[in-house]
Amino acid sequence: MVTISPARDNQREEFAIARALRRFFVDQLPPAGAEFTLRGEEAHHLLNVVRVRAGEEVSLFDGSGAVACARLLRGRRGEAALQVLSVGTADVEAARKLTIACALPRSARMDFLVEKCCELGVCRLVPMVTRRSVVDPLARQENHFLRWRRIALEASKQCGRARLMEITAVLPFESALVTREAECAGMIATPAPGPGLAEFAAKLHPGQSVIAFVGPEGGFAPEEVDSAARSGCAAISMGPRILRVETAAVALAACLLLG
Amino acid sequence: MVTISPARDNQREEFAIARALRRFFVDQLPPAGAEFTLRGEEAHHLLNVVRVRAGEEVSLFDGSGAVACARLLRGRRGEAALQVLSVGTADVEAARKLTIACALPRSARMDFLVEKCCELGVCRLVPMVTRRSVVDPLARQENHFLRWRRIALEASKQCGRARLMEITAVLPFESALVTREAECAGMIATPAPGPGLAEFAAKLHPGQSVIAFVGPEGGFAPEEVDSAARSGCAAISMGPRILRVETAAVALAACLLLG
Repeated sequence: MVTISPARDNQREEFAIARALRRFFVDQLPPAGAEFTLRGEEAHHLLNVVRVRAGEEVSLFDGSGAVACARLLRGRRGEAALQVLSVGTADVEAARKLTIACALPRSARMDFLVEKCCELGVCRLVPMVTRRSVVDPLARQENHFLRWRRIALEASKQCGRARLMEITAVLPFESALVTREAECAGMIATPAPGPGLAEFAAKLHPGQSVIAFVGPEGGFAPEEVDSAARSGCAAISMGPRILRVETAAVALAACLLLG
Repeated sequence: MVTISPARDNQREEFAIARALRRFFVDQLPPAGAEFTLRGEEAHHLLNVVRVRAGEEVSLFDGSGAVACARLLRGRRGEAALQVLSVGTADVEAARKLTIACALPRSARMDFLVEKCCELGVCRLVPMVTRRSVVDPLARQENHFLRWRRIALEASKQCGRARLMEITAVLPFESALVTREAECAGMIATPAPGPGLAEFAAKLHPGQSVIAFVGPEGGFAPEEVDSAARSGCAAISMGPRILRVETAAVALAACLLLG
């Protein structure tokens, strides 16, 4: 529907390359001065997509928060030989550690949720099965996990995040509930009237970690809401409109991390 | 990837029908007591998708905030004869009127943006062309508009909203800037450090309307940021990570309407 004109696509490419596409992921950053070889998808991206030339500098990150500046020595047969120039840390994490535990929505909506939560700075994502869940999480779960991890990695490269968002295995709601640590504030999103996000956020200490539970389209079952209340989670109204799983999750992330 | 098992799909259907799919859109609501005929896509949806039977009740809305309860008299040849039982208004709008004016992202991302802004309660959406825009808005603009309107309508039915989000024609940034009314607070999103959303929101009167400008992936050009500042818009930092257009727009909507 929307088309990209060739001239503007070039312009877009310039911006994208300037800021995001020159970041590459490595499993572990070598120390400053070390030479090493990048292989696989990231090397292909560096050599054939972004087309970095020998002598040019790129950024590297390993998902732990550490970043490095490196120079391409040579590229050959899909392998990039790089020298690390300097190593440091990137301070682009949100001040608050937020865990979003949400009922698994259908495929495309989950892809979107992973990307947006990563961009907004969510620390950990817990996909859940609840009483009223509509998605069968056992269908090729391993593939899902790899797909979501790839989406989170691409979003990290795009947005400049140096620490990877953790994505856990799919958990039953009750198991997700007991992962909450004592000092972490808990909330469960509900369509019922009651205290809203602003009231919840106002009671948090600066930097206090939060876990937010988001139900499926049919909502949490009453027993689930009761379990959450007994475990100390506040029931928080998401307003008079019924939000989809991914809308509620992304709205919570925005309000608790940016608002 | 994620598959829906038949049993659970039925369960999902029950929930969906119970709350959202029994809402139908009419151009203008007839008065209480009136009989009228629903035709076209909405009649098809009522008769063949949701399968409402004669004697059953449904909800109607016309996008102005008015809602009605009506009973199906009979369905025949794709036409549904209905009698309006009562007419009222639905109070599910956000307390604040928020206009999101954003650079047009690529097709699928704009579809998502329209759906999420509608669910979160955005009042008006202004797609823009900016200096660094990458999308050619003149490519079949009329089709886009109809597509976005359809997405907003479906999202309204889903989330229970009775007033349709207004979607304007695609405007150049400078034209969008002058649509701001005097009492409406203006802000322009920037990746640069500076005051954040919480500080901006704290200065708003309760219920004060807001217009938020969101730039393309390459950001606003410096002249555009200057124009916005001269017209009284606050430059607001969206944090240290670089957000995509649709992420920034949805995050702003969440923070200013729910946070």
